Amino acid sequence: MRAKHVAVAGVTGAVGQELLAVLQRRKFPISELTLLASERSAGKQIRFGEDTLPVQKLTAESFKGVDIALFSAGGSRSREFAPAAVEAGAVVVDNSSAFRMDPGVPLVVPEINPEAVKQHRGIIANPNCSTIALVVPLAPLHRAFGVKRVVVCTYQAVSGAGAAAMEELLEETRAHLNGQPFDRKVFPQQVAFNLFPHDSAMGDSGYCEEETKMVRETRKILGDPDLRIHATCVRVPVLRAHSEAVNIEFVRDVSPQEAYRVLAAAPGLDLFEDRAANRWASPIDASGKDPVLVGRIRRDLSNPNTLDLWLVSDQLLKGAALNAVQIAELL
Amino acid sequence: MRAKHVAVAGVTGAVGQELLAVLQRRKFPISELTLLASERSAGKQIRFGEDTLPVQKLTAESFKGVDIALFSAGGSRSREFAPAAVEAGAVVVDNSSAFRMDPGVPLVVPEINPEAVKQHRGIIANPNCSTIALVVPLAPLHRAFGVKRVVVCTYQAVSGAGAAAMEELLEETRAHLNGQPFDRKVFPQQVAFNLFPHDSAMGDSGYCEEETKMVRETRKILGDPDLRIHATCVRVPVLRAHSEAVNIEFVRDVSPQEAYRVLAAAPGLDLFEDRAANRWASPIDASGKDPVLVGRIRRDLSNPNTLDLWLVSDQLLKGAALNAVQIAELL
Repeated sequence: MRAKHVAVAGVTGAVGQELLAVLQRRKFPISELTLLASERSAGKQIRFGEDTLPVQKLTAESFKGVDIALFSAGGSRSREFAPAAVEAGAVVVDNSSAFRMDPGVPLVVPEINPEAVKQHRGIIANPNCSTIALVVPLAPLHRAFGVKRVVVCTYQAVSGAGAAAMEELLEETRAHLNGQPFDRKVFPQQVAFNLFPHDSAMGDSGYCEEETKMVRETRKILGDPDLRIHATCVRVPVLRAHSEAVNIEFVRDVSPQEAYRVLAAAPGLDLFEDRAANRWASPIDASGKDPVLVGRIRRDLSNPNTLDLWLVSDQLLKGAALNAVQIAELL
Repeated sequence: MRAKHVAVAGVTGAVGQELLAVLQRRKFPISELTLLASERSAGKQIRFGEDTLPVQKLTAESFKGVDIALFSAGGSRSREFAPAAVEAGAVVVDNSSAFRMDPGVPLVVPEINPEAVKQHRGIIANPNCSTIALVVPLAPLHRAFGVKRVVVCTYQAVSGAGAAAMEELLEETRAHLNGQPFDRKVFPQQVAFNLFPHDSAMGDSGYCEEETKMVRETRKILGDPDLRIHATCVRVPVLRAHSEAVNIEFVRDVSPQEAYRVLAAAPGLDLFEDRAANRWASPIDASGKDPVLVGRIRRDLSNPNTLDLWLVSDQLLKGAALNAVQIAELL
């Protein structure tokens, strides 16, 4: 692969920082690196390998000569600046929700639907973190056995709300332990030693936006617009990996052993469990790790043809930065 | 009601302490109060209203003249000493799992099956905390509409593992924030900023004991041995209230409005939500409160006749001490 001029928009955020780390760790061939962020962060110096690079203000003029622009600066900035990047000749890999459900924009998890990348017209969307974690095991099971219905409950880390949210969890917890008052800036409710249904906007359907994303994005990535899927998304006081309890009804009987066999051969995930020790994946097991950790596959004894599994995935890596860089590698 | 001689076994534990508080708050008519615990705690002085009472060592001889013995000292102590209490003429309300599935022992949630108390032969069992929280809204919905299948995921506070577990969460969190090592005594894994599938013993079925309890106890309390119910139980870094995401398939179409109407008239729960503000119950809303908080009722768009709801319940109160005292009040 010819070395590329890469731009990272939103480089000072939690995902932006992971994007730089993943680019470096995977030795992505970079001829030039442009670091972009809001005006507030412009002028900061950021280390990348041997180099120290200045952060520049993200504008419509930022993309001259850029081959690949990795966006992780929020939906409104993607909507504002991604078209300018495409205009300048870059391919945008966008981590926001701005373009994901646009029929002209591929929504890609490289282990699942890499071929979709070819359809791009300048923008490729990176799915939502909780969706990526789910589809990595769900897609191979769906292909092998046929999925009839999915019911998923999430246990989502605060990293999904950005670096400030991670800081808020730590600071609020510290204040709580010291019996001090705390002035929240990110979350609408106490998150220290607490949890709450995901605070993304409620739709008329009664599903919040995060849940609707899981439903729609999963269908798009799997290429199955009629897939029956129900989600409940919950924010928990965990720093950076999402957990999900996934109940999967298949069109026929599938034994846990059959499911384990399919997943053992599936890319992007590791089977992680020690059944004898009653030990399953937890967020700290997955933090900083690339693969989605999957295990605890058991029959749901309340329903025929139904299995249940447990997964944990680093929200900042496979849920965001890693998947985006993997998309860039496909280009 | 004639004032009773009440004994509390396990009085120094998290539930034991709440039992005293609930007895006092509800003005339970007490003629004499005997406080019992393991040898380690014997001799401690505990305040109860105006009085300060000594903790005595729990033995088979502890129950002379006792009318009602509230046990919350773990399953093995219940098995060892509850028969002696019954022999001495006391009625035992047992908070452990020792006798719950014994066909000769009523398993009672006073709002649901108070009539079962009459069948007792000396022992009445208090259900598991996560089961109580579930059946308080599930039973009236089942009676009104007929439940076909339940899929529940829990978000369980550490209080379910006792006072030492609550202390461990606080201390481990403090150590984590200060970058210090921590020596765990209660949980098999880090619980600070982490979570894990419930660590109760795994059965051959693939369900852990906590999940099996939810399945079996719910069937027994509802008097419906064939109820189809599936549970996933997860421990989260929350101090004292359990949350549950509950997916309920009914035998016919039920609108959220119908379900809200039934629950608005149901005892033991409060509807708690502000839909416009996207605000639902969280553990700190429920902590220290008697009712199970229920809300976020929505249609599951993946399946006909199916609703989803969210509930939070103080594990130490309705999940344990309050329910036990309510049973004692029925006697």
